[in-house]
Amino acid sequence: MFDPVEKLKEFIRHASISTDPKYRDGMRGAQEFVEGLLKGMGLCVEIVQTARHPIILAERTGEASWPHVVIYGHYDVQPADPLNLWQTPPFEPAIRGNRIYGRGAADNKGPLLANIAAVAGLLEKNPRLPLRITFLIEGEEEMGSPSFPAFLEKYKDRLKKADFVYLSDTALPSEEQVVITCGLRGLALLDLHVTGAKMDLHSGLHGGVLRNPIQALAEICATLHAPDGSVNVPGFYDDVLDVEPWERAELKKLGADEAAYAEFLGISSFYTAPGLSPFEAVRFGPTLEFNGIGGGYQGEGTKTVIPSKAFAKISCRLVPNQRPARIKSLLRETILARAPRGVKIDFVDQHQGETYVVVPPGRSNTPKNQSPVLARAFRAADAAVSEIWGRPPLYLREGGSVPIVADIKRATGLDSVMLGLFLPEDNLHAPNEGFNLDVMKRGIATAERILAVVAESR
Amino acid sequence: MFDPVEKLKEFIRHASISTDPKYRDGMRGAQEFVEGLLKGMGLCVEIVQTARHPIILAERTGEASWPHVVIYGHYDVQPADPLNLWQTPPFEPAIRGNRIYGRGAADNKGPLLANIAAVAGLLEKNPRLPLRITFLIEGEEEMGSPSFPAFLEKYKDRLKKADFVYLSDTALPSEEQVVITCGLRGLALLDLHVTGAKMDLHSGLHGGVLRNPIQALAEICATLHAPDGSVNVPGFYDDVLDVEPWERAELKKLGADEAAYAEFLGISSFYTAPGLSPFEAVRFGPTLEFNGIGGGYQGEGTKTVIPSKAFAKISCRLVPNQRPARIKSLLRETILARAPRGVKIDFVDQHQGETYVVVPPGRSNTPKNQSPVLARAFRAADAAVSEIWGRPPLYLREGGSVPIVADIKRATGLDSVMLGLFLPEDNLHAPNEGFNLDVMKRGIATAERILAVVAESR
Repeated sequence: MFDPVEKLKEFIRHASISTDPKYRDGMRGAQEFVEGLLKGMGLCVEIVQTARHPIILAERTGEASWPHVVIYGHYDVQPADPLNLWQTPPFEPAIRGNRIYGRGAADNKGPLLANIAAVAGLLEKNPRLPLRITFLIEGEEEMGSPSFPAFLEKYKDRLKKADFVYLSDTALPSEEQVVITCGLRGLALLDLHVTGAKMDLHSGLHGGVLRNPIQALAEICATLHAPDGSVNVPGFYDDVLDVEPWERAELKKLGADEAAYAEFLGISSFYTAPGLSPFEAVRFGPTLEFNGIGGGYQGEGTKTVIPSKAFAKISCRLVPNQRPARIKSLLRETILARAPRGVKIDFVDQHQGETYVVVPPGRSNTPKNQSPVLARAFRAADAAVSEIWGRPPLYLREGGSVPIVADIKRATGLDSVMLGLFLPEDNLHAPNEGFNLDVMKRGIATAERILAVVAESR
Repeated sequence: MFDPVEKLKEFIRHASISTDPKYRDGMRGAQEFVEGLLKGMGLCVEIVQTARHPIILAERTGEASWPHVVIYGHYDVQPADPLNLWQTPPFEPAIRGNRIYGRGAADNKGPLLANIAAVAGLLEKNPRLPLRITFLIEGEEEMGSPSFPAFLEKYKDRLKKADFVYLSDTALPSEEQVVITCGLRGLALLDLHVTGAKMDLHSGLHGGVLRNPIQALAEICATLHAPDGSVNVPGFYDDVLDVEPWERAELKKLGADEAAYAEFLGISSFYTAPGLSPFEAVRFGPTLEFNGIGGGYQGEGTKTVIPSKAFAKISCRLVPNQRPARIKSLLRETILARAPRGVKIDFVDQHQGETYVVVPPGRSNTPKNQSPVLARAFRAADAAVSEIWGRPPLYLREGGSVPIVADIKRATGLDSVMLGLFLPEDNLHAPNEGFNLDVMKRGIATAERILAVVAESR
């Protein structure tokens, strides 16, 4: 078996930033690294070309009676800037204590490699393991998986024959507590552009005459929340699914500490929608956030300009059963209705992702027709986590979005078992991203155990 | 006499951007160019060092009974970006038709050179001209004249002995109509910074929990105007001086066309404070404008971040008798009182400038103790403009700010005769800045005539 930590270092060294064409070599290197690893394990690897970065599809076939798991992951990473805030360079892996640092260490290279290592270990111990395995590893996750829907359309008939998806691209609240993610928020992203005069104007010669587009933008953005913290877009909450009592009970077991959370964030008070604690809000509530705003002069000192244009980048996190297309259309209508006179409104549509929910076996709302292999995988995960981590996992919805999970469900009917491996301190998408090597070790053992039990379930 | 157009080309070639240390050579070149020109006319030149860019003080002394004029101008220019929008490079003067193009052509190199040429011509025709002249030419106007107050403090006793200031750093509405500017708006500039969490956050992991600083900023900015177009800062209008009936009458003579103005700006409707037409608003009304806004991710595509910080650059144009220090303090208080919970507010103070007003002789509100030389200069200007331009000048307050005019008044008691020479199409502070060479020629003749009449007034 390969050394997972050495392999992770090698994986991190490939600067695989999917959104930036300058990193073409890093993307190619990361793809070939994964390909080599999977081929070395005896899998049959197919490189599926897309408009941007290829998808790696690797299969271990077997008898039709064997259970079939799809293991998902991604080999691309977020951009690394601001570079000056990194303690060590983002693409030179560094180990400090029991942690490895580097861009992508936690999202998703470390967790993906843990699952690959688990399969490698399992096959080494039992080359005749009665389990069919398909690795599905994409290179566009950090850009919103633009090629994934077309890929699914083409490969859905093959994937449909599998039993469930296994992935580790979600979070752990702490080293002591595993969470199996049972729901993901969806996403609806939209840029709002406001235009005033047709050119930038001198604020002395023309100030006081027209509505400044920054002012109009601020006026629009300020209407999108109510003072009570709810999103003030008519119809926004219409389709929101009620939270189940067992979900609230499960969240309580997390025993999370609001004061510690406020201190971690560095804020003096929370601002949540009515009826939700901060921990509920992030998992069960939909949001409207401004991810960016810009317009006019932003440099040092002053420039007394009335800019021609200003813009804001808006994203909504959605919860089951909100639909991104409907939310985007409500948002557009609301903004157009509220826009002040004298400015022009334009939208730039950005990507979106559907929400997802899966109910583990034995809960009040578990569907009657749940796949027996999926149910066994959940039970195996429960047992494996209880033994290896010393306490059973919690079953929680998560605030983040992994849109491909919903996409796979829609295209193939497959549900996902999401066993998170990154910690709050892992700094995903931020400087000094890192990954806990003890968590990695336990993640490998857990995945091995789950897959071994599933294999026996035929 | 030198050729003013050739000299202007030479002047423009010195890239004298005062705010950018990279243009040190251009600043030095422009300063030495002016110095050489004035020395060549027989003036005694003193280079007054400041913390940044020197002030050029050039004197033609004479008998104590001679009238004494101070001629103001500045040799620095605005930055030239965005460079790609210039038809010809900003520091390579180009003549197309009767216009010369280049950064600083109109602001202020062309008009300043017109006044220097007028003095040169006058002294050539009459070397014994009974007029004392002080050129006061600074290099920091485009950065808010930071060294000017200290200079005034040191030189005010010398300057106090003069009779008035003459300058051409204001606008003409058209080639046919000269305006003598009788008032200038002041300026109060302030940056507003809003901080939410102590670091940028993932909008999936933490969205819905805290107040986004962009949202808080938008909420604050949206309160700073009332729907009727007035500035919604309590006390903002308290000190505003009433507009005199003769001022409104004078403005009517301008015969400006609102529809044409809206088309020039490219807007579908005006947005002015109550009781003011657009042309009145820009001259008689105070404003609060947003010159810039920024925060979070502003690049292509998306980044689902909740930024830690956002900011807006705010500037107020003030009218007599508003005071910038008081307006800044009202603005800070209002913002602090309206800031939502859970965010931190900081201000960065930027520069400011006092308002200015001077009343030409014979108006209802002309002060009784107006200096006789100043009154004669106004009458000479009226006669010279009527003859050379074919119609008398209008006496109007202007929307722009030339803070040094108020500073000089406060330090020395001297009033200013401001005879504008740049046209709306001259694109000040913008790409393709240009200057009309016919206006320059008439500007030279006008200044010559005025100064000749003032000289005879002893």
